[in-house]
Amino acid sequence: MNLIDWPYSTPGIPDNCFSRSRVPMTKEEIRVLTLAKARLGPGMTVYDIGSGTGSLAVEAARLVAPAEVLAVDGNPEACTLVRENARRFGLKNVRVITGMAPAALKGLPPPDRVFIGGSGGHLEDILADCHQVLRPGGIIVVNAITVETLGTVLSWGRSRGYQVEALAVNLARLEMVGRYHIWRPLNPVYIVQLTIQLGHEE
Amino acid sequence: MNLIDWPYSTPGIPDNCFSRSRVPMTKEEIRVLTLAKARLGPGMTVYDIGSGTGSLAVEAARLVAPAEVLAVDGNPEACTLVRENARRFGLKNVRVITGMAPAALKGLPPPDRVFIGGSGGHLEDILADCHQVLRPGGIIVVNAITVETLGTVLSWGRSRGYQVEALAVNLARLEMVGRYHIWRPLNPVYIVQLTIQLGHEE
Amino acid sequence: MNLIDWPYSTPGIPDNCFSRSRVPMTKEEIRVLTLAKARLGPGMTVYDIGSGTGSLAVEAARLVAPAEVLAVDGNPEACTLVRENARRFGLKNVRVITGMAPAALKGLPPPDRVFIGGSGGHLEDILADCHQVLRPGGIIVVNAITVETLGTVLSWGRSRGYQVEALAVNLARLEMVGRYHIWRPLNPVYIVQLTIQLGHEE
Amino acid sequence: MNLIDWPYSTPGIPDNCFSRSRVPMTKEEIRVLTLAKARLGPGMTVYDIGSGTGSLAVEAARLVAPAEVLAVDGNPEACTLVRENARRFGLKNVRVITGMAPAALKGLPPPDRVFIGGSGGHLEDILADCHQVLRPGGIIVVNAITVETLGTVLSWGRSRGYQVEALAVNLARLEMVGRYHIWRPLNPVYIVQLTIQLGHEE
Repeated sequence: MNLIDWPYSTPGIPDNCFSRSRVPMTKEEIRVLTLAKARLGPGMTVYDIGSGTGSLAVEAARLVAPAEVLAVDGNPEACTLVRENARRFGLKNVRVITGMAPAALKGLPPPDRVFIGGSGGHLEDILADCHQVLRPGGIIVVNAITVETLGTVLSWGRSRGYQVEALAVNLARLEMVGRYHIWRPLNPVYIVQLTIQLGHEE
Repeated sequence: MNLIDWPYSTPGIPDNCFSRSRVPMTKEEIRVLTLAKARLGPGMTVYDIGSGTGSLAVEAARLVAPAEVLAVDGNPEACTLVRENARRFGLKNVRVITGMAPAALKGLPPPDRVFIGGSGGHLEDILADCHQVLRPGGIIVVNAITVETLGTVLSWGRSRGYQVEALAVNLARLEMVGRYHIWRPLNPVYIVQLTIQLGHEE
Repeated sequence: MNLIDWPYSTPGIPDNCFSRSRVPMTKEEIRVLTLAKARLGPGMTVYDIGSGTGSLAVEAARLVAPAEVLAVDGNPEACTLVRENARRFGLKNVRVITGMAPAALKGLPPPDRVFIGGSGGHLEDILADCHQVLRPGGIIVVNAITVETLGTVLSWGRSRGYQVEALAVNLARLEMVGRYHIWRPLNPVYIVQLTIQLGHEE
Repeated sequence: MNLIDWPYSTPGIPDNCFSRSRVPMTKEEIRVLTLAKARLGPGMTVYDIGSGTGSLAVEAARLVAPAEVLAVDGNPEACTLVRENARRFGLKNVRVITGMAPAALKGLPPPDRVFIGGSGGHLEDILADCHQVLRPGGIIVVNAITVETLGTVLSWGRSRGYQVEALAVNLARLEMVGRYHIWRPLNPVYIVQLTIQLGHEE
């Protein structure tokens, strides 16, 4: 299939449509739940911090066009992949920033939505900087695979007055082995949604 | 919020935006995964069999407009709810059919996508009838909560030459109890995606 | 069945063999995993902190007899239940201490094993006091249902040099609804095992 | 540690205490739940069908001694491992039968408990033969990883009048990656317990 003409309006592009090498990728079903929790709409500016292969950035870019997705990753190999994957889907609205957040966020336009998939150990600084620039009604969605990240995001969100929701996600995909069907688990992940409460002032 | 202007392009309308009484509802996160597995796009005709509150029909209708979602349910109370929920979101493209599938499917336009959320014990007949009318490239997505339904759908799909994929979904939502966060599990559900293989002839 | 003669050597007494009212109970399957992680043996002194109905204390008492299980709970209703449940199984080696840990632990004989099922908000103090008296080769097993408890136990255990293992437990029990089988989830729980490393000196 | 003196009365011998090569092994936590559902006690004769490495047979043998565990496996490599693992724990009451069930069950003493971990595609025949010889009050526990096995066991058990209980088991073990803790899922498994109802006559 020519991916430039990918015709579906639902998120959930199959994993094997993306170029990935060994860079970590947000799996299709996790991506779908993550995008849903971000409540994207046309015209929203999106940060994708720790973008990895860019699978999330690509799906977001299709949903917010003509607004921009700003994909930030400190790994040059990842940045190359993000660009390649955006090109595969014919997207002009994915801007790739090679660098570590929060430093690499300096000077970017204020976001309506922020995805944090990787933080390189600077999660609280990234959250603090995003908090400064997040636009009214904004949402931050964090995908956490570590217990520590989950704890940090929850307590940070509560203390800043965000509305905090979260999901523990345990999925398994069906696989055929001979004539039988077995389940192969995906790695468990926590998806945390931080929504600015009404009355939040920057 | 005025739901007629619900502005987001991602699926995932919160459960409490729907009128529901005691009719079963597909929970937000399950709905999001179910819609993703159906790969909806504008112009696709959709069957929603066992539509319950119509939460899935409403989300689908927003994604396939101006094409129609045909919501079928044998319970008149459910049908009333589907109509009310469609009206809440200002949707004109949800047609409600009160009746049991497969009988109630007679004479409906052929679908591109079929959701089966409830079958009233007639799952194989419903699958057989949908198979007859499913358009080229069509997808059937079944949400199964029983072991028996899962088994039936998998073996039916294999024997008819469909490409079969499935997901076992175990999700838990975070909840505050005092100053602490605990997890409340959603009921486990299986989501099965049946895709017509290339070369399928009716 | 006369529970005094409960004849099995495997843990896993069914939930409905215990008297419980509204006091929280460790469910059979969680209890089984918790006991396994404690590696009990005859002659071991056991603390059961936050003993609730005493289902864990009863099973432990059968496995360590003639040594004692010291069941500690601040709720007098729970303490009554623990005594009743111990009597049901004809156990003489369950001693019930009504009071809040860590204060209530004062003067008790040093333990080989410690279960912490509830801490009334004093988890770190309880861990610190247990650490002081835990005998060589000792194991502490914490059942955590909150994200905060999990985080606290992990970081406490690491910083004190314990060997830390943990399990995220998502179980569902089969239930018949009409002619069909569905899954009912148990609440997710984390089981953390803290083992004193070789060379630990009190 | 000298495994002959393994001193614990709780099941749950760590996986790495068993010799295994590439033969499949029932993981520690799954083993613990499986043993609990079998309700073992001293003097019970046990079949372990599809015994793999023998980890389940070893734990069962410790719990039913001096009665025998009859470990049956069609793979000679597995049978060698079962013998080696029984020897490691100094067990004299594990008898290894090289051969495929149900044929290999011919002439064995009638069992009080039956574990079925693998059936080589002959599950219904194995169940039928075990049903013939199972002693009063007997229990069959099946570990199923395939959807098909689960379905077969449930419908077989219901139609023969067994009391049927089952557990869907989704566990994840904590693992350190750098300074962080992540969860690694075990493969999902279904544990089915079939108990002969009161009044069952052979």
